[in-house]
Amino acid sequence: MIQNTKLPTSNLRIIPLGGQEEVGKNMTVFEYKNDIIIVDMGIQFPEEDMPGVDYVIPNISYLRGKEKNVKGVVFTHGHMDHIGAAHILLNKLGYPPVIGRDLTLALLKSRLEDHQKGSTSQLKTIQVKSGKEQIKLGEFNLNFFEVEHSIMDSIGVVLTTPVATAIHMGDWTLGSEDSNEKQISYSHLANLPKPTILLMESLGSLKKKDLITEKEMWANFESIINKAPGRVIIGTFSTQVKRIRDIFEYARTINKKIAIDGYSMKVALKIAMQLGYIKAGKGTLIDIKQANNYRDNQLIILCTGAQGESRAVLTRIVTGEHPRITLKKSDTIIFSSSIIPGNEKAIQRLKDSLYRKCDNVIHNEIMNVHVSGHNNIEAIKELIKQIKPDYLLPVYANHYFLKEAKNVAKSIGFNEKNIFILDNGHIINFNKNNAPFIEAKKVDTSYVMVDGLGVGDVGQIVLRDRNTLSQDGMFVIVAIVDRRTGKVKGSPDIISRGFVYLKESKELLYETRKKTVEIINKSSNANGAVNWSYVKDGIRNRIGDFLYAKTERRPMILPVIIEV
Amino acid sequence: MIQNTKLPTSNLRIIPLGGQEEVGKNMTVFEYKNDIIIVDMGIQFPEEDMPGVDYVIPNISYLRGKEKNVKGVVFTHGHMDHIGAAHILLNKLGYPPVIGRDLTLALLKSRLEDHQKGSTSQLKTIQVKSGKEQIKLGEFNLNFFEVEHSIMDSIGVVLTTPVATAIHMGDWTLGSEDSNEKQISYSHLANLPKPTILLMESLGSLKKKDLITEKEMWANFESIINKAPGRVIIGTFSTQVKRIRDIFEYARTINKKIAIDGYSMKVALKIAMQLGYIKAGKGTLIDIKQANNYRDNQLIILCTGAQGESRAVLTRIVTGEHPRITLKKSDTIIFSSSIIPGNEKAIQRLKDSLYRKCDNVIHNEIMNVHVSGHNNIEAIKELIKQIKPDYLLPVYANHYFLKEAKNVAKSIGFNEKNIFILDNGHIINFNKNNAPFIEAKKVDTSYVMVDGLGVGDVGQIVLRDRNTLSQDGMFVIVAIVDRRTGKVKGSPDIISRGFVYLKESKELLYETRKKTVEIINKSSNANGAVNWSYVKDGIRNRIGDFLYAKTERRPMILPVIIEV
Repeated sequence: MIQNTKLPTSNLRIIPLGGQEEVGKNMTVFEYKNDIIIVDMGIQFPEEDMPGVDYVIPNISYLRGKEKNVKGVVFTHGHMDHIGAAHILLNKLGYPPVIGRDLTLALLKSRLEDHQKGSTSQLKTIQVKSGKEQIKLGEFNLNFFEVEHSIMDSIGVVLTTPVATAIHMGDWTLGSEDSNEKQISYSHLANLPKPTILLMESLGSLKKKDLITEKEMWANFESIINKAPGRVIIGTFSTQVKRIRDIFEYARTINKKIAIDGYSMKVALKIAMQLGYIKAGKGTLIDIKQANNYRDNQLIILCTGAQGESRAVLTRIVTGEHPRITLKKSDTIIFSSSIIPGNEKAIQRLKDSLYRKCDNVIHNEIMNVHVSGHNNIEAIKELIKQIKPDYLLPVYANHYFLKEAKNVAKSIGFNEKNIFILDNGHIINFNKNNAPFIEAKKVDTSYVMVDGLGVGDVGQIVLRDRNTLSQDGMFVIVAIVDRRTGKVKGSPDIISRGFVYLKESKELLYETRKKTVEIINKSSNANGAVNWSYVKDGIRNRIGDFLYAKTERRPMILPVIIEV
Repeated sequence: MIQNTKLPTSNLRIIPLGGQEEVGKNMTVFEYKNDIIIVDMGIQFPEEDMPGVDYVIPNISYLRGKEKNVKGVVFTHGHMDHIGAAHILLNKLGYPPVIGRDLTLALLKSRLEDHQKGSTSQLKTIQVKSGKEQIKLGEFNLNFFEVEHSIMDSIGVVLTTPVATAIHMGDWTLGSEDSNEKQISYSHLANLPKPTILLMESLGSLKKKDLITEKEMWANFESIINKAPGRVIIGTFSTQVKRIRDIFEYARTINKKIAIDGYSMKVALKIAMQLGYIKAGKGTLIDIKQANNYRDNQLIILCTGAQGESRAVLTRIVTGEHPRITLKKSDTIIFSSSIIPGNEKAIQRLKDSLYRKCDNVIHNEIMNVHVSGHNNIEAIKELIKQIKPDYLLPVYANHYFLKEAKNVAKSIGFNEKNIFILDNGHIINFNKNNAPFIEAKKVDTSYVMVDGLGVGDVGQIVLRDRNTLSQDGMFVIVAIVDRRTGKVKGSPDIISRGFVYLKESKELLYETRKKTVEIINKSSNANGAVNWSYVKDGIRNRIGDFLYAKTERRPMILPVIIEV
């Protein structure tokens, strides 16, 4: 499958670039001759071994020197894992045109302005108005199609070149007649110029059908809100814009008021209202400051924080740090979101705290109050049957989901040889005259971490140090050496943090000082120049071993020797 | 419910002591007059905000000064969350008698010897031989009963005093006719002297019935092992001793060989074999060193590491660090364990790596290959109906599980007023003449963390420092000041780790040095003694603000000023 042939310059090359373990999740590059189209520029959350890192963005080193070739960036929808890195990457690429539907572009602009006021003034935008839109950008013809997902204005994109046609689904479901949303058919994509390549988000490749339909889920939801004895507090993602819309619509019919809290939630709501996607008249939307002027059973509070994020609104409400909302026994709390892997413990703690203060805490283990916006095994089969692609690229999920998507496709007779499981950085070539192949050389996709103002300056060394420091802390030994005698003056200073509680470890410190003085004085016994770097290694090793023997901990040891 | 009355000295007092958020999970204390019985001494895994900590043990400060009152420690079964802290706590309590069944005591002794050779010589053991055993320890009469769990020799205990009878379930299921294990009835516990108090492990209070029975699960398991085209590698907990036994028995019937790897797995197997619980003749058990002498489809490798633990065998196999086992495409990998909350990401990564190298990776999302050893909603109802306790104490799980267990009990008519949800450290009093009450004053249950050789010496300050260091690293500034002039000599030294990559931050360091010199020299302008602590605060604040302005990071700043 992996060949090292001379590259025909006229292949369609597809390169998944972003997304840590999730292939292509945040960014995919399409290249044909001298033209490049990018789909999405999103962020990923840091792994547990990346302490202090805010988020990870796609590595665009492949595009260095090719900035001018980038003819446009398509944003499939407005979620952070699809638009969140745009404020950094668009700037690096000299602001190529951005393409998307209304809500997506509005959220994108808001992200840019949040980071740098006025930066959207440089933005060239192309609005996708309908599914029939056609855009020619260099050698690419772009068409779009509507997809069903948990935020409005989600689209897929068809990239047509003279040699091959790529179909990129974005995040998708089929929708269903049982849902609040319409069912979507993608059959028209079966008629595109051959060969067609389907890039298919595969998060649902291990998921059997939901036990309940979205309609049943919604019926649960409505009944809880309607019958709640007191206030209803709903924690969800700010980006579940359709869920937010539905809650507003239902609240209006039963004459309840909604107060919103959480910065990202407010931004999303404001934008969705401006575009007319959410109708929240004054009769329904109230200011959180006015919340306490209403009867409890008249009030819904919609906020961020269902993942147990330490600074989000729901957490602040439960810890009593919220300036206006104090929990009451009679409040009903609804967790209306799925659990993002890695947040399980934080969510458990949040639940514990909520259960201590409220009698009615509703989450999916109690009653189905959330159905995900992603696909499942049956939907994957149906999609492949409708689109009948020549080649299948499962993307947008961990490797093992992609392998399982391959199994799903095989199970309905799709030819295994035409399925390619890529890694980030693989370059796959398509051309109607030849079989596809993956180039032997991968593109650099090492993590680009954002920490504070730094983009990419936190590398493996800094991370390794942070992890070491977090395990057993650190131990700085400062010794002053008399230049003339080569002997330590006075007693070395020790500064230690995160290792042991110093006040209770006087003997350990005394011994360490004594050993340090011995090591230095012994090294400088010989006349002539002292190799201080050698002496420092000695301190690091011997004091390290000594502390380990006494404590079975290995703090980072940093010797400082100053000659005066 | 919480009263502050004068305590009758003759109440049965029950105090859940161990288990972070899980109430009483690792240790429960029963006290009547001057006698104390302890049930279990287990460990908990550290939370994410406890970097470097090995595990957490119960806080026994309540027992200080009462060591002589402790008449015995009952161990319900041999899992680490029930015996893992015994090597520390038994020693602190002067080795009171330990009570349990064979496998439990053998695993307990092994734990003790692992930590200190010869320490079991001081151990007074009382073997529980059957369900009919009666032991009198001080004022307590102890009876035992068999419970069904994933390890042999699991027991529950009845603690009878003149004023009340406590029934402690340990970890339990009802068993079932569909399982490999026998169904257990607890009805005889309904006839104990009144009032009876049921301490009920409630991990299953949110769990609907398993979708498949244990028999069906096992049929899946057998068919996978039988049909495997190559080797079968099974990752599980070393403490799932029954599962290990069943795998051995099945292997024998189909004439496959089993190689074991992982220290804890080997220990558990050896002990279970010595006791005759696992029959692994030479025909079946082979040395892992001989594994490559057998045909692939003849071989099963049973190992630790299904939770993605970085140093466990399965992880070493997949990363290529295992000295003997190299993965092949044809290997079949089975994850035969549930996911411990907090391990989700590590398991995802492990799955990714396995899917890259093997064609057959089996886990519960693919096919049911694990059924947990805990109860569920229906079992909880049945248990309460069988035992008919006067009072119910849901324990052994996070608060929200306990609240839900209360809801389950209420749903079958159990009187809400007789259900008590405790926190660790609560003291609840029972006496046949009065209503139960919880004392106003809680016992100290602050975390006792074990890190290397240190028990309890890592406290909040050390942890806070470790977390701070892990976020943005640290920054030590060493300045030498001339005692006569009060001015800085030369240029301050800077040692920084985990903050920025120093080689690429020369200007930042230059500016920092300059500012430090300014701050010190300015402070020492005035004649007379310099308040160095004040100067250091100045450096911390001003350099901190400077670095934040430049980087939006807040490393820990440690100024060292040395006068020479």
